[in-house]
Amino acid sequence: MVQVNSNYLKLKAGYLFPEISRRIKDFTSKNPDADLIRLGIGDVTEPLPLACREAMKLAIDEMGTTQGFRGYGPEQGYHWLRESISKNDYLSRGCEISAEEIFVSDGSKCDSSNILDILGRENKIAVTDPVYPVYVDTNVMTGRTGEVNSSGEYKGLSYIPINSENDFEAEIPEEKFDLIYLCFPNNPTGAVATREQLASWVHYAKKNNSLILFDAAYEAFIQDESIPHSIYEIEGAKDCAIEFRSFSKNAGFTGTRCAFTVIPKCLKGKAGEEEVDLWSLWNRRQSTKFNGVSYIVQRGAQAVYSKEGQTQIKRLVSFYMDNAQIIKSNLTSAGFEVFGAINAPYAWIKTPENMGSWDFFDFLLKNAYVVGTPGSGFGAAGEGYFRLSAFNSRENVEKAMQRIVKS
Amino acid sequence: MVQVNSNYLKLKAGYLFPEISRRIKDFTSKNPDADLIRLGIGDVTEPLPLACREAMKLAIDEMGTTQGFRGYGPEQGYHWLRESISKNDYLSRGCEISAEEIFVSDGSKCDSSNILDILGRENKIAVTDPVYPVYVDTNVMTGRTGEVNSSGEYKGLSYIPINSENDFEAEIPEEKFDLIYLCFPNNPTGAVATREQLASWVHYAKKNNSLILFDAAYEAFIQDESIPHSIYEIEGAKDCAIEFRSFSKNAGFTGTRCAFTVIPKCLKGKAGEEEVDLWSLWNRRQSTKFNGVSYIVQRGAQAVYSKEGQTQIKRLVSFYMDNAQIIKSNLTSAGFEVFGAINAPYAWIKTPENMGSWDFFDFLLKNAYVVGTPGSGFGAAGEGYFRLSAFNSRENVEKAMQRIVKS
Repeated sequence: MVQVNSNYLKLKAGYLFPEISRRIKDFTSKNPDADLIRLGIGDVTEPLPLACREAMKLAIDEMGTTQGFRGYGPEQGYHWLRESISKNDYLSRGCEISAEEIFVSDGSKCDSSNILDILGRENKIAVTDPVYPVYVDTNVMTGRTGEVNSSGEYKGLSYIPINSENDFEAEIPEEKFDLIYLCFPNNPTGAVATREQLASWVHYAKKNNSLILFDAAYEAFIQDESIPHSIYEIEGAKDCAIEFRSFSKNAGFTGTRCAFTVIPKCLKGKAGEEEVDLWSLWNRRQSTKFNGVSYIVQRGAQAVYSKEGQTQIKRLVSFYMDNAQIIKSNLTSAGFEVFGAINAPYAWIKTPENMGSWDFFDFLLKNAYVVGTPGSGFGAAGEGYFRLSAFNSRENVEKAMQRIVKS
Repeated sequence: MVQVNSNYLKLKAGYLFPEISRRIKDFTSKNPDADLIRLGIGDVTEPLPLACREAMKLAIDEMGTTQGFRGYGPEQGYHWLRESISKNDYLSRGCEISAEEIFVSDGSKCDSSNILDILGRENKIAVTDPVYPVYVDTNVMTGRTGEVNSSGEYKGLSYIPINSENDFEAEIPEEKFDLIYLCFPNNPTGAVATREQLASWVHYAKKNNSLILFDAAYEAFIQDESIPHSIYEIEGAKDCAIEFRSFSKNAGFTGTRCAFTVIPKCLKGKAGEEEVDLWSLWNRRQSTKFNGVSYIVQRGAQAVYSKEGQTQIKRLVSFYMDNAQIIKSNLTSAGFEVFGAINAPYAWIKTPENMGSWDFFDFLLKNAYVVGTPGSGFGAAGEGYFRLSAFNSRENVEKAMQRIVKS
């Protein structure tokens, strides 16, 4: 019989979000009239920007003509989109990232998973704790870890704690790691990295010849002008970092699907003693295993960079950040300890009376009809915390706060 | 320094299609006025069906409202699309494939690559020769092979020749393989598998506990009513086969991106001695590493199954099959030996005077301004053959035939 990849059997029972869905389904089947408010999964709720919709409709019209029809596009994305990204997201902030170094994809979840395809299995890997579960699970699935222990840590992975004791700043490790996952603004804690902190990471990576996988999916929510939006704002980062970015959160593309990954051409790895550039490997991976993003969707993403698009996404971001502010102020007034929610759409809340994360999840579900995300789902150090997302209507966010405060 | 996946260095210099692009670019830079006709990559050229365009525009309008907005969809695809596929592609042909067994994705190239994620590395693997290069390259990239030899064969993979001597029928092997890639209608040869041949494969797989990866991306082009469109038309196939299907060729979605993979719930593999069902592993893979296909695109795919959609895609398929017929009759009259092009959109042509495949590629490019695909790009047994695709306008196909015949 065909042998399966037995590493999958090491995975904990459920990926966090399916487990949440399961509990919700169970609850609503017993309480069909409960009017749930979902502040759990980081999924946007507001309409797609008009500029994007108009651009996609034009693209559909083109696809209806012989001359305008587009078949297979470049696996790396259309040049006009890569140019727009390079110009608006990088050159404008002083980062020398060219269109060629940008690979358009259907999602950051895919890219931050697939990146392991081009990396060796012998690398020493560090993640923060709490952490976006996809980084950990994809390492498990590809056989880069051993078994899980009772606190949910996998053998062979190193965990760098981020919690209130260190101000949600991951401390620069003494130890040498080959590969480090960083996410700022952070999912789930909502913390940001200052220029100095990022510079220390780049310094660490250059000194140790490490590669940083930098997830900047939430950069659009940064309000403080001194905080870098891209790791490439730090000198030397092009020699040691890959960056993941997405249209999911800034432009509401969670259901439309478009993202991109930056792999600088100067970035090197080793195959034994031979130096190899990572750009070529990723280019080969994408050409062989991927067929590019829908032309229609890429036109929608390009419209994000139009004047109208920029105005519309700024309005979207402010809307969600006002929600974040409402969450933070209400819960703080009610005596909760609330982190994040200033430069990120996530509030990271200390559970009351040291309640367990999943207990607090069940408590809010049953008593406030509010769905959040248990901190322990993001790692052992997330136990005793709870994530609420700012992605919902104003009415729902306000109602949820009233309910939580009363419960 | 971070170690890369050194298996990538085993890959032959260029993936076939990028290599073709390189030669074309080189030629057109020297001959900017050459009016090239591309019958190379299997990429469709006719406008997207109206039903699909209308459905996608409606979906975009929905996305512009708070009520109709869709964020993250199910990673497996929306239920209404999976239901339509189950009903129209399977139940209607007597195959008991449920909606739950269908996983919607952004492409068959991705799925037929990603499937290796859930399979062990110790499996003995067979491919046909010639073969769609993605099957081979993804095995190389994931370390399932050794080095390549001078005829382009990788150590550790077994090749089952299909050529004019065996009537382009892959012979059922004596040897036991755990995993076998089959593609019918075949890319690149255009050959089909009769019900009897498929039944022999299913019999082989059940006897040897093998898993068949069945690529049916071209099923819509089958004209002969006795030929199965799905491997599940064969009794017992649900116990031994995964099927890949796509909207790329039947509905012109190569630039729109939608496909699906069928993993029957009863399909088993082994982790050591433990039986594991493949459906759960794939479900876990997709939930963790993928975020589903654009809502807009899935609505477009669903429209393929509407009454208008069905009429429109039938018209598209006939159009391309008329092209195939024009290619076959013209080249046959001109003395070429032409295979395929009856139940598939590909003509598989014996090169004249035993010319090498790449030589014939260069010859046609320079003398007829026609781009095809060298058979040797699909494997050692493809040497001496050449693939022409029926995907182009009538005018271009006719012009290409005149030029080839004259050249």
